Amino acid sequence: MAVRAAVAGASGYAGGELLRLLLVHPGVEIGALTGNSNAGQRLGALQPHLLPLADRVLQETTAEVLAGHDVVFLALPHGQSAAVAEQLGPEVLVVDMGADFRLKDAGDWERFYGSAHAGTWPYGLPELPGARAALEGSKRIAVPGCYPTAVTLALVPAYTAGLAEHEAVVVAASGTSGAGKAPKAHLLGSEVMGSMSPYGVGGVHRHTPEMIQNLGVAAGGPVTVSFTPTLAPMPRGILATCSAKAKPGTTAETVRAAYEKAYADEPFVFLLPEGQWPATGSVHGSNAVQVQVAYDEAAGRIIAISAIDNLTKGTAGGAVQSMNIALGLDETTGLSTIGVAP
Amino acid sequence: MAVRAAVAGASGYAGGELLRLLLVHPGVEIGALTGNSNAGQRLGALQPHLLPLADRVLQETTAEVLAGHDVVFLALPHGQSAAVAEQLGPEVLVVDMGADFRLKDAGDWERFYGSAHAGTWPYGLPELPGARAALEGSKRIAVPGCYPTAVTLALVPAYTAGLAEHEAVVVAASGTSGAGKAPKAHLLGSEVMGSMSPYGVGGVHRHTPEMIQNLGVAAGGPVTVSFTPTLAPMPRGILATCSAKAKPGTTAETVRAAYEKAYADEPFVFLLPEGQWPATGSVHGSNAVQVQVAYDEAAGRIIAISAIDNLTKGTAGGAVQSMNIALGLDETTGLSTIGVAP
Amino acid sequence: MAVRAAVAGASGYAGGELLRLLLVHPGVEIGALTGNSNAGQRLGALQPHLLPLADRVLQETTAEVLAGHDVVFLALPHGQSAAVAEQLGPEVLVVDMGADFRLKDAGDWERFYGSAHAGTWPYGLPELPGARAALEGSKRIAVPGCYPTAVTLALVPAYTAGLAEHEAVVVAASGTSGAGKAPKAHLLGSEVMGSMSPYGVGGVHRHTPEMIQNLGVAAGGPVTVSFTPTLAPMPRGILATCSAKAKPGTTAETVRAAYEKAYADEPFVFLLPEGQWPATGSVHGSNAVQVQVAYDEAAGRIIAISAIDNLTKGTAGGAVQSMNIALGLDETTGLSTIGVAP
Amino acid sequence: MAVRAAVAGASGYAGGELLRLLLVHPGVEIGALTGNSNAGQRLGALQPHLLPLADRVLQETTAEVLAGHDVVFLALPHGQSAAVAEQLGPEVLVVDMGADFRLKDAGDWERFYGSAHAGTWPYGLPELPGARAALEGSKRIAVPGCYPTAVTLALVPAYTAGLAEHEAVVVAASGTSGAGKAPKAHLLGSEVMGSMSPYGVGGVHRHTPEMIQNLGVAAGGPVTVSFTPTLAPMPRGILATCSAKAKPGTTAETVRAAYEKAYADEPFVFLLPEGQWPATGSVHGSNAVQVQVAYDEAAGRIIAISAIDNLTKGTAGGAVQSMNIALGLDETTGLSTIGVAP
Repeated sequence: MAVRAAVAGASGYAGGELLRLLLVHPGVEIGALTGNSNAGQRLGALQPHLLPLADRVLQETTAEVLAGHDVVFLALPHGQSAAVAEQLGPEVLVVDMGADFRLKDAGDWERFYGSAHAGTWPYGLPELPGARAALEGSKRIAVPGCYPTAVTLALVPAYTAGLAEHEAVVVAASGTSGAGKAPKAHLLGSEVMGSMSPYGVGGVHRHTPEMIQNLGVAAGGPVTVSFTPTLAPMPRGILATCSAKAKPGTTAETVRAAYEKAYADEPFVFLLPEGQWPATGSVHGSNAVQVQVAYDEAAGRIIAISAIDNLTKGTAGGAVQSMNIALGLDETTGLSTIGVAP
Repeated sequence: MAVRAAVAGASGYAGGELLRLLLVHPGVEIGALTGNSNAGQRLGALQPHLLPLADRVLQETTAEVLAGHDVVFLALPHGQSAAVAEQLGPEVLVVDMGADFRLKDAGDWERFYGSAHAGTWPYGLPELPGARAALEGSKRIAVPGCYPTAVTLALVPAYTAGLAEHEAVVVAASGTSGAGKAPKAHLLGSEVMGSMSPYGVGGVHRHTPEMIQNLGVAAGGPVTVSFTPTLAPMPRGILATCSAKAKPGTTAETVRAAYEKAYADEPFVFLLPEGQWPATGSVHGSNAVQVQVAYDEAAGRIIAISAIDNLTKGTAGGAVQSMNIALGLDETTGLSTIGVAP
Repeated sequence: MAVRAAVAGASGYAGGELLRLLLVHPGVEIGALTGNSNAGQRLGALQPHLLPLADRVLQETTAEVLAGHDVVFLALPHGQSAAVAEQLGPEVLVVDMGADFRLKDAGDWERFYGSAHAGTWPYGLPELPGARAALEGSKRIAVPGCYPTAVTLALVPAYTAGLAEHEAVVVAASGTSGAGKAPKAHLLGSEVMGSMSPYGVGGVHRHTPEMIQNLGVAAGGPVTVSFTPTLAPMPRGILATCSAKAKPGTTAETVRAAYEKAYADEPFVFLLPEGQWPATGSVHGSNAVQVQVAYDEAAGRIIAISAIDNLTKGTAGGAVQSMNIALGLDETTGLSTIGVAP
Repeated sequence: MAVRAAVAGASGYAGGELLRLLLVHPGVEIGALTGNSNAGQRLGALQPHLLPLADRVLQETTAEVLAGHDVVFLALPHGQSAAVAEQLGPEVLVVDMGADFRLKDAGDWERFYGSAHAGTWPYGLPELPGARAALEGSKRIAVPGCYPTAVTLALVPAYTAGLAEHEAVVVAASGTSGAGKAPKAHLLGSEVMGSMSPYGVGGVHRHTPEMIQNLGVAAGGPVTVSFTPTLAPMPRGILATCSAKAKPGTTAETVRAAYEKAYADEPFVFLLPEGQWPATGSVHGSNAVQVQVAYDEAAGRIIAISAIDNLTKGTAGGAVQSMNIALGLDETTGLSTIGVAP
């Protein structure tokens, strides 16, 4: 029997992608859809690609509207999830697609988000060591950030295997949907087409502490991360180019072996054959992660690269994957590893 | 029980899109995959987005390889389908995604394709009056061209209702995948990004006689079509802007009524609410067709606009839709009307 | 000696493009730059590509600030130019890049723009019959709209030569900069990349009466225009696909001859060799217009296609070209016919 | 009096960009244009944006054709320049836009290019310490690679000032024109639009030793470089994100001061105001370099980012800049720092 799911924040990109996935999920029935500034509007006007839901009308995000659902997804601006979650009973599975419950360190939260720390929920990156156990049966899930998803999956095997020094350097390119749907001049098509630009440079991007937290789990100790995000002229996708100095004794073979071992049984992570490199276009609209790794002997560094769809595996697909685990469903239910390309 | 389907020409864009759809079709099991110049290669190297099929190896397109399948899809260059089809038994459902069996008029074929006419098969545009009956139980299907699909669906209601003069003017923009995967300098990313350009201007594009044929069916008499295709800087999608002079007595209301009537029960054609216009992005990766129509009283013309995904509804999705009908399955089996956007 | 030019509205796309051109114009010295909501900001923050002007600060658009210049360019929202122009003396050359003074028919203005008609100034499309004479020595110039520029130049030769019926059908694709820099959700990069969509369909786009006015001049009588604009996934460029039924006796040769004659001596309009078609990428950043024409005998229509850069020839370049004429300079001064491609 | 310049390889992207610049260079007259496989063709068919040269016809690349010019630009495939250069007299200024004469270390050349080392010419990156002196009056110039130009200019100040450890990590995104005009399937518009992908990962890209060579000059000792190039969905531009561990005692202020000092007097390098970051769109079609730097204290790294147009400053503009120096002209002659944006 299908669970009934509400989506708070159905008018944005994360909410739209979630609905795209839930529409084909055999175990979910779509319930209330909310969106504050857009309440009262037809979904067809806001998400014209969701044709089967075109006549649904957005409601206000209130406890009354969200009541009576088995699962409530929160696709709200950062800092708003806690207040909504408090009003939902402990028997409701609440999946927060915002940042509010990702960070364990209250100081990190306050430094990067500038508000009081709401707490920490089980972290929805099943591929991270220990994560699945915490998600099983949980009623609260903190969905990872899109960049941390890509970066963590690229680097965890190197740290788990003890091959890399604890100083990572990451440069990631993201499609513009990662910046959301609120209209801003620098996100206009005229500005982004034909241009690449960095932002949040120098350790100030909010996803940095989340990466540090994740890599620390894998490495068994603190890892520094130099993270530079860049905005790429494409609507979706993250390409994360990650590297770290190799520990003495590392060879191309030990690196390859570590990655093969790490991802042999993961349903969504695909270590590509040697010589083939990830491309965001290949995972467009899919929950798959493409990973490849190289060892640059001259520079003494391991270079691990991943490609994800920031809205799917990076947000809504990751949310559904973790929901599946929490509900005791097969982890892959309703999720695809087939990209929409070209 | 699933039918077993072979795909001849699995390395191109049409073949890749077909496999993307067949992978999630509950009634089809994917059999042999062929591709002449690429025979022997892993599909993972040619279609990196089809991760579940990455280890499949392409075979030669021969009668032996294609034998033993219930359905054979031909995604071959124009003019090559007849020779392959001849070697397949009459009990095999052959779905030709090329142009070979679309045109009824041998003269048209010879004039536009420069070779001998191979014949005519039931035409795989179920929404065209009379088409479904011809497809039911058929063992041969000619899948329409991508432009004719978009143009026919935009204009048929106006002609069926007798509202439009028999002279249509069509300007359509297509994504670059419509031009195929064979490397040509004018299709390089450097050339197409940031640029729009027309081609095949002046009535010389091969899809013109197919449009004329289809609109003639709806109009019950000859229709001329001035067709100008343009290449747009996007990988997928066709936006067809079609117009014709309105017959005396036409009003905005009669036009709207004709379109509402025509598409009230079509599962894949969505007449948008008044004021909302089609966008190719909204049907990206989906089999849906968005249609909208306006009556320009000052110019005395009906303007009908459709948006499709050229690879899905325009090619592989249309092929699956017609296959479903031929096999007696529900017409929508395995097909989605949800776009992958943004 | 250089004239001193002020630019009112220097923070938008039209103003930025104008400054790009004026920076290399040997006869112009750049004076005051204004921009109301952005007054007080560095131009470097608003137009980061204009590096030589990065430290200039925007002022308020007031009569005091604009006083003391030989030329004042108005790149203001529609309807605001008249009030500013009134405050400038008759000895100042005022070049209005808005729509306010383009239309001769007050009724058209009121119907399409919804306000009182401000009047009519000499029309800055030198290639239109009679236009140069009106511009010479003029102290007021109404710069044409971007679409009317492209459409007029595509169709005028057919009408001047009396080859075409007085009913034109136009479908034009525009880059997103034509929609301006004010942030709107449907203009976000995420929305426009990978998608084409129409807008203003059915004769309601404001540029329609301007096209009708221009073609009427060439045809010597009323012409109806069915105009459909579409938004293309590129920052710049207009591709205008225009057609009209050919009058009896028209042949491919008479059409070609008419266009060769019309553009033999035009410095910015390039009738391409037969077989080569315009591309917006080829005129990126240039004041050139590429034109090509075909006669479709089967459909009985003349198809004329032009490509321009909407910001250059379509706005700021056209403004400079007309300014040159008004000032008695060589018409091509400071303007390029070399595109920035690929 | 203008020098007369020939361009060998005028049909490719580098040759086309060079012609775009030479057309507006007041000190150069364009002479012979050659292109082997395209010899005999009109330039208008090959470079449709160079409208003033449309009727020029390409000749074979022979000593006879190139004779009698003051300057010969070689835009040939790697490894072909030496043979042509040998046939040109020592009084001819030969500007090689290929890689043949860039590397000082013959072993590096052989390892990365697989052929015999042709030698070393004065290196055409005037901003590199010592480079201008070597270029003045020189009759041979080796134009730098596009990536090395961007990376060197980003990192040189940090190394010159002794602030950075000698291990650099570089991830750079390039527009597709960097991959040239020869048609290849992975460079089709359908493949690159909407997708980012890395290539040449792990220290194998040919531009790596050139970066190492340049940074070594600045650092006064060997520097390792981990270089990962990525292909971005845009026609032009390089965004180079470069970092290195800071030496003890480094602060944000010392870093800023080093960059301000380095670029205070450079005509083409613009250190942006604090808080503003480079964007490739801002330098589109210009010879400008935008640079910005940050110090990430938590990670202990200096992050320096540059944006260039790969075809202009990265190839043809850099060639003209060095030619100017060699000829004794003002270094900025004929070159622009104004981008074509949006």
